[in-house]
Amino acid sequence: MTAAPDGQLPLLLERIDRQARERFGLGRVADYIPALTDVDPRQFGLAVALVDGTCHAVGQADVPFSLQSITKLFTFVLAFRSEGDGLWRRVGREPSGAAFNSIVQLETESGIPRNPFINAGALVVTDILTSRYAHLDYALLGALRRLAGEPRLYWNARVALSERQTAWRNLALACFMKSHGNFDNDPELVLDNYCRQCATEMSCLQLARATRFLARGGRGDTGDPPVISADQTRRVNALMLTCGAYDGAGDFAYRIGLPVKTGVGGGIVAIVPGVASIAVWSPELDTRGNSVAGTWALEALARHTGWGHTGF
Amino acid sequence: MTAAPDGQLPLLLERIDRQARERFGLGRVADYIPALTDVDPRQFGLAVALVDGTCHAVGQADVPFSLQSITKLFTFVLAFRSEGDGLWRRVGREPSGAAFNSIVQLETESGIPRNPFINAGALVVTDILTSRYAHLDYALLGALRRLAGEPRLYWNARVALSERQTAWRNLALACFMKSHGNFDNDPELVLDNYCRQCATEMSCLQLARATRFLARGGRGDTGDPPVISADQTRRVNALMLTCGAYDGAGDFAYRIGLPVKTGVGGGIVAIVPGVASIAVWSPELDTRGNSVAGTWALEALARHTGWGHTGF
Amino acid sequence: MTAAPDGQLPLLLERIDRQARERFGLGRVADYIPALTDVDPRQFGLAVALVDGTCHAVGQADVPFSLQSITKLFTFVLAFRSEGDGLWRRVGREPSGAAFNSIVQLETESGIPRNPFINAGALVVTDILTSRYAHLDYALLGALRRLAGEPRLYWNARVALSERQTAWRNLALACFMKSHGNFDNDPELVLDNYCRQCATEMSCLQLARATRFLARGGRGDTGDPPVISADQTRRVNALMLTCGAYDGAGDFAYRIGLPVKTGVGGGIVAIVPGVASIAVWSPELDTRGNSVAGTWALEALARHTGWGHTGF
Amino acid sequence: MTAAPDGQLPLLLERIDRQARERFGLGRVADYIPALTDVDPRQFGLAVALVDGTCHAVGQADVPFSLQSITKLFTFVLAFRSEGDGLWRRVGREPSGAAFNSIVQLETESGIPRNPFINAGALVVTDILTSRYAHLDYALLGALRRLAGEPRLYWNARVALSERQTAWRNLALACFMKSHGNFDNDPELVLDNYCRQCATEMSCLQLARATRFLARGGRGDTGDPPVISADQTRRVNALMLTCGAYDGAGDFAYRIGLPVKTGVGGGIVAIVPGVASIAVWSPELDTRGNSVAGTWALEALARHTGWGHTGF
Repeated sequence: MTAAPDGQLPLLLERIDRQARERFGLGRVADYIPALTDVDPRQFGLAVALVDGTCHAVGQADVPFSLQSITKLFTFVLAFRSEGDGLWRRVGREPSGAAFNSIVQLETESGIPRNPFINAGALVVTDILTSRYAHLDYALLGALRRLAGEPRLYWNARVALSERQTAWRNLALACFMKSHGNFDNDPELVLDNYCRQCATEMSCLQLARATRFLARGGRGDTGDPPVISADQTRRVNALMLTCGAYDGAGDFAYRIGLPVKTGVGGGIVAIVPGVASIAVWSPELDTRGNSVAGTWALEALARHTGWGHTGF
Repeated sequence: MTAAPDGQLPLLLERIDRQARERFGLGRVADYIPALTDVDPRQFGLAVALVDGTCHAVGQADVPFSLQSITKLFTFVLAFRSEGDGLWRRVGREPSGAAFNSIVQLETESGIPRNPFINAGALVVTDILTSRYAHLDYALLGALRRLAGEPRLYWNARVALSERQTAWRNLALACFMKSHGNFDNDPELVLDNYCRQCATEMSCLQLARATRFLARGGRGDTGDPPVISADQTRRVNALMLTCGAYDGAGDFAYRIGLPVKTGVGGGIVAIVPGVASIAVWSPELDTRGNSVAGTWALEALARHTGWGHTGF
Repeated sequence: MTAAPDGQLPLLLERIDRQARERFGLGRVADYIPALTDVDPRQFGLAVALVDGTCHAVGQADVPFSLQSITKLFTFVLAFRSEGDGLWRRVGREPSGAAFNSIVQLETESGIPRNPFINAGALVVTDILTSRYAHLDYALLGALRRLAGEPRLYWNARVALSERQTAWRNLALACFMKSHGNFDNDPELVLDNYCRQCATEMSCLQLARATRFLARGGRGDTGDPPVISADQTRRVNALMLTCGAYDGAGDFAYRIGLPVKTGVGGGIVAIVPGVASIAVWSPELDTRGNSVAGTWALEALARHTGWGHTGF
Repeated sequence: MTAAPDGQLPLLLERIDRQARERFGLGRVADYIPALTDVDPRQFGLAVALVDGTCHAVGQADVPFSLQSITKLFTFVLAFRSEGDGLWRRVGREPSGAAFNSIVQLETESGIPRNPFINAGALVVTDILTSRYAHLDYALLGALRRLAGEPRLYWNARVALSERQTAWRNLALACFMKSHGNFDNDPELVLDNYCRQCATEMSCLQLARATRFLARGGRGDTGDPPVISADQTRRVNALMLTCGAYDGAGDFAYRIGLPVKTGVGGGIVAIVPGVASIAVWSPELDTRGNSVAGTWALEALARHTGWGHTGF
């Protein structure tokens, strides 16, 4: 509940940086997307964006990495902003209790995905946004650039293409939902958008800045109007806490106790409401698809700062 | 994050009491246990136990009701205190994504229940406690009396018997886990204990007092040593947030944002860490088995006090 | 076991024709494909092709109807002839125990469909044939024309298009199998072929003739070489008996005891090995998707001829 | 379709006996019931009871073995005889598409087992018989003695006790069905009966004789009235064909094409309607729980006699 004295934060981050690197070799880089396997596994970056506008970072915090599922957070916020609670007619908000790409629950629940942070749910969200934006891929990129205050963000075209060519499972999910009437656009078109957004690259520093609004009641870094309302922000964080780490959400809540969103690129973003947003990255994953060194670092940071289990 | 000015809390509670009663008739009293159907459905009680030791209550806050699944919280704390993290060898800590009494997940996960707050998980917890206490039923009652500071707590023998006679589904769960080697005692014996504990009766006032330690870092009302450590308390609350409302956990987190545990007797307990414990009760349930008026009151209280989404 | 005296067969068929029509109104025409709903529901046809080359027919036995899933039998025979037992690397031969279009079993069994007579299995079979034939749609039509001894067989282009435009569930199945490496061609291309073959139309007389080889150890009507060997024929019949009526296979075996294949166009084909092939058609379906009057007629015919439970 | 010339049957059986023994070592004796593991694995027996009353046997055809699931056939016949088609209100007749002891389907189908030959279904059948017979264990033994024409049949008390003590999974199935109202008696009592019947021992010769009525339209060896009617017999055989080999029923129908019932004691009984009943036994099982040498021998016998795929 009490933030670490800011003066000590840099020292703490440096120690975590050193110790996190001792975890190298304990996980495996994601191999289900060919283009992702090229990344050098022995990298670690960590950035903390405090609500006062300052940032602290260590390691490869300025190396761009593939956001992958972390973009589900951004597309959800975008859709939530425009649709409000009407969004929940199309997607649930319960933990899935199954793998991130399971199709079984769709069958038992008539094509309504359990939540926006599993693949099926994110596809519905992308379908909604595809109806709203003429060029969703560029619209999303524009939104991310504004949030991160960084005009040079791109998706990696090679990774996007690689994902698109192997997206059969996601295409199956989309077609299945369309068969239940829960998909408006052509699944192929939505998949195009989905794969581009997953291939978006950011560094830890950029990611921490781009999510700072979730630690600040919806208000971004600039003087612009809030991204979403304070009330909506709390609900986004609640959803991240219960559904942000796939089938490991309960374990993350138990061990770390912060709203998070993870990605198979090795990135994790965590929110300390009222205090800071955190982005950590290291490519090697555990068997559940979460970054080994990243998870360790987040747990250590949460424990030593007292940020963990905020509000518990 | 900011508690309501204490001076206004009584007025707020009175207004909630009035408005909650307008929900009478919108739900149905639990009928799966014959003895539970006798209760007068048009009752509502609410008690708030602040960490400073004071209590506020409205409605039938001193009428004892059947705790049912709320006892899963107490047995879990008891087992967690004695077993520590060793407990997680026997039970998981992930949301279930299925009904409270589902047996399907047990089959796919080799007899390890998803978490301690679904029936299968609570049965494992009771099995652990049955090994540890010669007379678990009385041991648990003693613990509850100390926590509530009330020597006259009992289980309702008629309800316990009624549940015991219709406990076939729970017996199936216990036998299934025993077939997987995840059950030490005779299932019949554990069921005896389980049904007695479920039939324990408390009033809202007693229940709010008995759970106040979860709002106070594990320290109870008396000068006794803490019930559990501050660190363990945070983890219990994290578990309540992700798993405390069966398959409605995501919805509760989204709408209310507090650690809760619900029961089919119509009771709900909620924790505002550092601030208060809340107990609310009204017998009519929604289709998910949660109290209609109780849920409404909890949401209203959380919103008007700013206690909701604490930490988000 | 003993065939009905041939002299009495015409009389029996006439009686069945009369009584079957009393079942009109008890079922519903398939509505999941728009173009199928146009058919006049009050029709009934029945044709028996004896192994001696003669045919007996009553009712609308010369009205073409949409074969739908009955084509799964023909595509399976075609693939079995060319692939032999190698086929079983791509598809199982166990009853599914689930609905004809379920995707759940695919997930638990890594993309291998349970048998060639559910949608997923028939899609794999069509995928195999798509690799083998440059123009599968015409190749299949040619094969059916030779089997039926009827050069004027076609698929209904309007029905094929209607099915193709609503084929999202089947597309999901195909994409899902492709994600598991159990699909060689582009799912869209295979779906084109699949929908055309499902829309093929035959009359009862044509269908009975086209399947007579299954009652005659694989030998067709003409002097051509056998369609498949006697041994293969027995195995096709065994598969029809255990898997030919979707999730009603056990019930059909119990009540009728003949190898069958049903379709949602209202057609059913049944084989009496060594005796006859039977085709029956009436558009109204029961809740499982089998023709009401057709099933009744088949059961009556099997019982009165003694053909039912042949070999039991 | 054509039976082997009887004169050659003894020679064929001897050859099969020799070759079947070459399969020793390829499977594993069932180890889930401790008492079953004591059996010498290198044994093989085969008996053929022709409908003319003669018998042919080779190998250890007179060594008693544990019938296990083969008794499901006898209890089903007993219940079918007394209940008729009313039996189907309590149990289905569809292949299960899942493991023999799965509890998942019970949940999705409200406590109605898929068929009488999986554990859940056999427990319901035993429940029905428990209501009908004061001492089912002795009543069943009496029926088996009459069928086999052998007064010295017993259950192995040590095996029965061993099964009873480890019957948690079956007890879970029974309790689950009772929770759905599909179980009349105390599950413990039914389990007593169930475990005793499973532990009944017969030799191949006795078993072939005891099942000969299924090859003879329901008529037993003696001049007594038929066990069941010819019509019922056909339906029992149909059920064996679609459901007699658990999740391998489709494979058995495809490869052998005869009604069968298998047991984890290593026994298999097969019916050639109008011709013979066959009992084969060898303790080593494949991964599906069917006898390795027994299955091989049955397939060889069916192929060389032309009995296989009778009626296909």
